Amino acid sequence: MSRLTTIAKHLAFGALMSACSFGVFAEAPPISDKQKKNAEALIQKALDSDLGFEIVESLTTEIGPRLGGSEAEKRARDWGVKLGQKLGFDRVGIEEFTMPFWDRGHLHIAMTAPYQQPLYGTALGGAAPTKTQIDADVVYFRDIHALTDIQDGALKGKIAFVDGDAMVKSQTGAGYSQANQRRRVGWQHAQRGGARALVVRSVGSDSHRFPHSGMMSSDDGEWAEIPVIAISNPDADHLRRLHQLGKTLSLSLHSESKWEGEVDSGNVILDLIGSEKPEEIVLIGGHLDSWDLGTGAVDDGAGIAITTAAAALIASLPERPKRTIRVVMFGAEEVGLLGAFAYAKQHENDLSNHVLATESDFGAQTIWQIVSNVNPEATALVDEIAKILSPLGIVRGGSDVAGGGPDIIPLAAKGVPTIRLNQNGHDYFDLHHTPDDTLDKIDPDELAQNIAAYAASIYLLADSAVELKKN
Amino acid sequence: MSRLTTIAKHLAFGALMSACSFGVFAEAPPISDKQKKNAEALIQKALDSDLGFEIVESLTTEIGPRLGGSEAEKRARDWGVKLGQKLGFDRVGIEEFTMPFWDRGHLHIAMTAPYQQPLYGTALGGAAPTKTQIDADVVYFRDIHALTDIQDGALKGKIAFVDGDAMVKSQTGAGYSQANQRRRVGWQHAQRGGARALVVRSVGSDSHRFPHSGMMSSDDGEWAEIPVIAISNPDADHLRRLHQLGKTLSLSLHSESKWEGEVDSGNVILDLIGSEKPEEIVLIGGHLDSWDLGTGAVDDGAGIAITTAAAALIASLPERPKRTIRVVMFGAEEVGLLGAFAYAKQHENDLSNHVLATESDFGAQTIWQIVSNVNPEATALVDEIAKILSPLGIVRGGSDVAGGGPDIIPLAAKGVPTIRLNQNGHDYFDLHHTPDDTLDKIDPDELAQNIAAYAASIYLLADSAVELKKN
Repeated sequence: MSRLTTIAKHLAFGALMSACSFGVFAEAPPISDKQKKNAEALIQKALDSDLGFEIVESLTTEIGPRLGGSEAEKRARDWGVKLGQKLGFDRVGIEEFTMPFWDRGHLHIAMTAPYQQPLYGTALGGAAPTKTQIDADVVYFRDIHALTDIQDGALKGKIAFVDGDAMVKSQTGAGYSQANQRRRVGWQHAQRGGARALVVRSVGSDSHRFPHSGMMSSDDGEWAEIPVIAISNPDADHLRRLHQLGKTLSLSLHSESKWEGEVDSGNVILDLIGSEKPEEIVLIGGHLDSWDLGTGAVDDGAGIAITTAAAALIASLPERPKRTIRVVMFGAEEVGLLGAFAYAKQHENDLSNHVLATESDFGAQTIWQIVSNVNPEATALVDEIAKILSPLGIVRGGSDVAGGGPDIIPLAAKGVPTIRLNQNGHDYFDLHHTPDDTLDKIDPDELAQNIAAYAASIYLLADSAVELKKN
Repeated sequence: MSRLTTIAKHLAFGALMSACSFGVFAEAPPISDKQKKNAEALIQKALDSDLGFEIVESLTTEIGPRLGGSEAEKRARDWGVKLGQKLGFDRVGIEEFTMPFWDRGHLHIAMTAPYQQPLYGTALGGAAPTKTQIDADVVYFRDIHALTDIQDGALKGKIAFVDGDAMVKSQTGAGYSQANQRRRVGWQHAQRGGARALVVRSVGSDSHRFPHSGMMSSDDGEWAEIPVIAISNPDADHLRRLHQLGKTLSLSLHSESKWEGEVDSGNVILDLIGSEKPEEIVLIGGHLDSWDLGTGAVDDGAGIAITTAAAALIASLPERPKRTIRVVMFGAEEVGLLGAFAYAKQHENDLSNHVLATESDFGAQTIWQIVSNVNPEATALVDEIAKILSPLGIVRGGSDVAGGGPDIIPLAAKGVPTIRLNQNGHDYFDLHHTPDDTLDKIDPDELAQNIAAYAASIYLLADSAVELKKN
């Protein structure tokens, strides 16, 4: 793409600019000339390489959908191990854990009054099955706030439908947490009201006839005892218009989704062992599992591809960086960050060696910002890294921004420093958790820009003598 | 939208330009000043009106999907009659006919090797059911030509999969007939080869996980004896990639689609009776039926809305035009132009009174061209009409272009003159025959531009003293 060609051309100019800025340091710049040269070569190599796209193509094609705890997720782990071996990582393995398995099963949902029409829906993660087919009138709620106001028992015998609006689009994905309330906690109020089932408008920014799946929140460890179904935005629009016309709506639904007991999952670990401080770990990664409706291309095949390809490019340098670079392909993220919590638990005795952690889990559009949460000296290093990333269209963001991605939450909570390479999420929630999350949605050039940014920044952080941990 | 605001501003300028061009006529210009003023007022009124959008909103919301011959299509006819009465048409009625009914039924289709993955598919119109569940290996064909080359009996026990490519996008929809071959006649070769079922890549230009339905061609009145399924473009991409990796593909499918005997359908007729030549009919319309997967918004709720609203605007003029304007809401178009053939048959004795016919059945994007197939004097009239449409962004196209839309085929074949207001079809085949053909896909401003063009041109043709029929 022309934009990336331009980036490549400007690299030389960027180098010149950075060299000038080094003049302000009296001595010992945080990035040596050699490191800078290596980082810029990594950027160019990443932009010229197809490796990242080949990885996500292979994962989505050869493994397909890979629900946390499923047989497909196990095949994905084996795939991850083989990939790590093929790409020359120094240490490759699987760290297993067990988890409760929720299976989507088959769903039938249709409007039956004022007339018959199939709806495009899917069960939400954690939902109970219908014991028999449910045929019931609908009580319409304009939004989640209207539902939370109801009296206990007020929905007896009914199906609650919580409307809302299509998710607001933004670069940062800022609309998600607000829209997500109906998915997360709607069931607690519908169940309290005695509803036979809850139907919600999907949490998504598209106007296509795809439902968006996703996990509900448990209520102190308790899951919904009723079926909970998300329907597509156009289907929700349709029900809203009929409701506004004063029609009584009825739905028929049958859902087989249910919890099926304890199964095995695991995290795949690929290490490039550090040449000087092998015990210090710079952790990057994505999640290997996906929702089962699509093939998990943007969520999160892209993150797996970006971080694995970036590390593989670093592995092609003549020397290993000083610190160990660890790629973690987390298992069972979608169903509750289970791989992330398992990793934090299994590594609780060596967490102090984790000097940095970050995850790529926000699709495959370009990175536009680097933020960090490290100590002041390391903050200055990230400032310099940001200058090197600048030709990729990346700006420096906040230096006290918590969080390095969903699977990093348990690590960050234990004090592991983080950075985050923020991707443009404008179109992410068009595809998020839908059947439409497939390989064709990934632009290879945008993916390559991500890999370039990860390769350069992770190399510089891993090869730096600067202490990254907070005091 | 700003473009349409610009159109409105330029109307005055367009009027000036047209006035100048009249200078070339010695006398009796084909369009009088009064007619021209009325036509321009109709354009402005159409651009300012919400009537068209309200019609398609009502049809898609209050009736929903309306498969030819279904109970829903009957409700749509009743809706059409009520609408015609409400909008003040002079004569409103239904002309019934009978037809064979094909029902889609439920479909399950999944890839079962190299691993288990659901596919997004739908039965093609006219397909037979599976007698039992079919589990079989796939024979892959890169395109329809590869399938047509096979020997009789060569596919015994197998499922044939005909790939191809996503349909090429164009303003004219030029890619359709080529891509459509696999949908139309693929079954004849698969059946000849002894295949247990045929699966084809959808005929569509999108890269979403929606299958595109559509009718197959019969073979001298005989329909497929095997199930025929279209799968989405991303699903076809997926199978192709696995095939290219040398994997053996297996599918499991169960389809209930079948012919269900003779049922009632009908065409709804709304007439504005001509003030001077009531027997001469200028016929416009769209089709009232839709495929059952979506709610038939762009195909062809839009056409119903455009032509009905245009006629209703003409009805609001102080006088009726000289000729009768007839809006026909054709029944059962999708399943073989059955309403169109019934109309031609039922009107065979008064077809000579049909002096012009045209249909809107290509979505809801803006009109960019007017073409015609009328006598030379009427061609000059259409040239003048094109000038009046020019501020709407419409150019004059060919004056010997056959065809006024699918439902006009039987009339044109009997010599009825035609025009066609060609819509931009660039995005039409993203939605065509998919579950995603819903109201949210229609831009009210683009719809209004269509109505403006129909109102002005149909008024001028109906009110003209110029003979329209070919000699």
